[in-house]
Amino acid sequence: MRIVVLAGGIGGARFLRGLKRAAPDADVTVIGNTGDDIHLFGLKVCPDLDTVMYTLGGGINEEQGWGRTDETFQVKAELAAYGVGPEWFGLGDRDFATHIVRTQMLGAGYPLSAVTEALCARWKPGVRLLPMSDDRIETHVAVDLDGERKAVHFQEYWVRMRASVPAQAVVPVGADQAKPAPGVLEAVAAADVILFPPSNPVVSIGTILAVPGIREAIAEAGVPVVGLSPIVGNAPVRGMADKVLAAIGVEATAAAVALHYGSGLLDGWLVDTVDAGAVADIEGAGIRSRAVPLLMTDVDAAAAMAREALTMAEEVRA
Amino acid sequence: MRIVVLAGGIGGARFLRGLKRAAPDADVTVIGNTGDDIHLFGLKVCPDLDTVMYTLGGGINEEQGWGRTDETFQVKAELAAYGVGPEWFGLGDRDFATHIVRTQMLGAGYPLSAVTEALCARWKPGVRLLPMSDDRIETHVAVDLDGERKAVHFQEYWVRMRASVPAQAVVPVGADQAKPAPGVLEAVAAADVILFPPSNPVVSIGTILAVPGIREAIAEAGVPVVGLSPIVGNAPVRGMADKVLAAIGVEATAAAVALHYGSGLLDGWLVDTVDAGAVADIEGAGIRSRAVPLLMTDVDAAAAMAREALTMAEEVRA
Repeated sequence: MRIVVLAGGIGGARFLRGLKRAAPDADVTVIGNTGDDIHLFGLKVCPDLDTVMYTLGGGINEEQGWGRTDETFQVKAELAAYGVGPEWFGLGDRDFATHIVRTQMLGAGYPLSAVTEALCARWKPGVRLLPMSDDRIETHVAVDLDGERKAVHFQEYWVRMRASVPAQAVVPVGADQAKPAPGVLEAVAAADVILFPPSNPVVSIGTILAVPGIREAIAEAGVPVVGLSPIVGNAPVRGMADKVLAAIGVEATAAAVALHYGSGLLDGWLVDTVDAGAVADIEGAGIRSRAVPLLMTDVDAAAAMAREALTMAEEVRA
Repeated sequence: MRIVVLAGGIGGARFLRGLKRAAPDADVTVIGNTGDDIHLFGLKVCPDLDTVMYTLGGGINEEQGWGRTDETFQVKAELAAYGVGPEWFGLGDRDFATHIVRTQMLGAGYPLSAVTEALCARWKPGVRLLPMSDDRIETHVAVDLDGERKAVHFQEYWVRMRASVPAQAVVPVGADQAKPAPGVLEAVAAADVILFPPSNPVVSIGTILAVPGIREAIAEAGVPVVGLSPIVGNAPVRGMADKVLAAIGVEATAAAVALHYGSGLLDGWLVDTVDAGAVADIEGAGIRSRAVPLLMTDVDAAAAMAREALTMAEEVRA
């Protein structure tokens, strides 16, 4: 079975770990979000790709969900001693090495997809991890600060400002000119199932879908497309998805997110048991739906969610 | 008193620390060797500049004479885990931060002299540290390996190969097209005294003198130029200077190095007490000479050497 998964960071990575347990023999291709990539200290940092790679490769800091286990922060402390920031982005020493290798390879002319493959040669994530695009795309968030509208990098909005002011708009800068990375459209076309993990519908999956050609390829693949709601009980399971949903005029509910994707894209949508009341509305919009536990408290819980998604995909196919 | 010092790495840095103690009120400009700079992992590493900066700024690893104190090696271990080398060059985590800042600034368009000034704003070395040039110069060493002549980067010859094969030639690649960094010729022209610490006469001071204009400026400055022999008892005090001296046909003796510089450049030359027998030969070549202890066993010993050099400069002037 060939499964294509669109993934953001923590939610996507944890779901993928469950999927690998639920379907150990499946051939999984992950299309990773690169809209939250950022250049820091002259280095190219790809937080979502790395979170997937570290999580599936056994190097993740389990407690925080991102970054490396057994991490130290000597480089960051030294950079601060030089007065070189930003200090709000927590890069550890082990993590720095990944960004140094990536930046060196990019500087030598390799595209991000080739660099990601090279990094994965070490981590052996057990999936094929593709960046959504080799072209530079940066998600910017428009905010009103001191009476003035400003665009800030997504990481600045998310990490430094902790989404403390409303997002007026979310723009994947560069997406309109970008091309899907090599292998992305081929993987979608060859897929038996396409899954949307409980990742952020705006800045993770939404950004992937903003790369011209990807949304169309998924809609036309003719295979079941099943998603899992990142919203449970009218609040994001983690992160601050409600802030960026508001920017695109979508309510922070399991049903609203399903309808935002729409029946043209989505065949099935799993909601949490606390949102069982939304199932009828979602089905009314032409999207198969069911309420199941959607909290990834551990790998077993994530695997159970993956099984539910695959089961729903089979129902859609039948 | 305005003192200009041409400095390589460890020997130069330790001498400078002594000089600062010996002449605390002097205005010291250091012209640092950049011929042993190397690009590693996409980062610009300037070993000699950093050794001076760390030593005078209180951040040096005293035992080894280079690198940072309280150093850790997480980044290096991670790079090795990615299969990215070289592993033979020992960059620690704290040290990496310096190279990251430098590389970022160079990438943003600042010349190396401005970058060095910015780094020194943190370290406050108490001297004005100038790279010999903002242009890229890389010392290469020609060696015969498996019956074939090859050029290797100086660091590869020195650190990886530990100078275990004879150096057939030493070439400061790019020097002939390079210009002295801003301030270098001005400092030489304004100097009251010019000192050559016991640094390597070929790959440290020799490389600085290879930048067109610097040797001429020193020769024409009309002020005392006094050096200290890095060769004691026919052997380098540290390092493997004899290997690269052989490549330029100069014996590894205190007298031969003085004569290599020559009376056109050098006014005074201190040799170690064990080399007292060489004083007559050196004076015979028109260079004032005296035998004094030249082992920098501690800062006091280095300060005593600096005082001897300044005293000799006054004798030359008189």
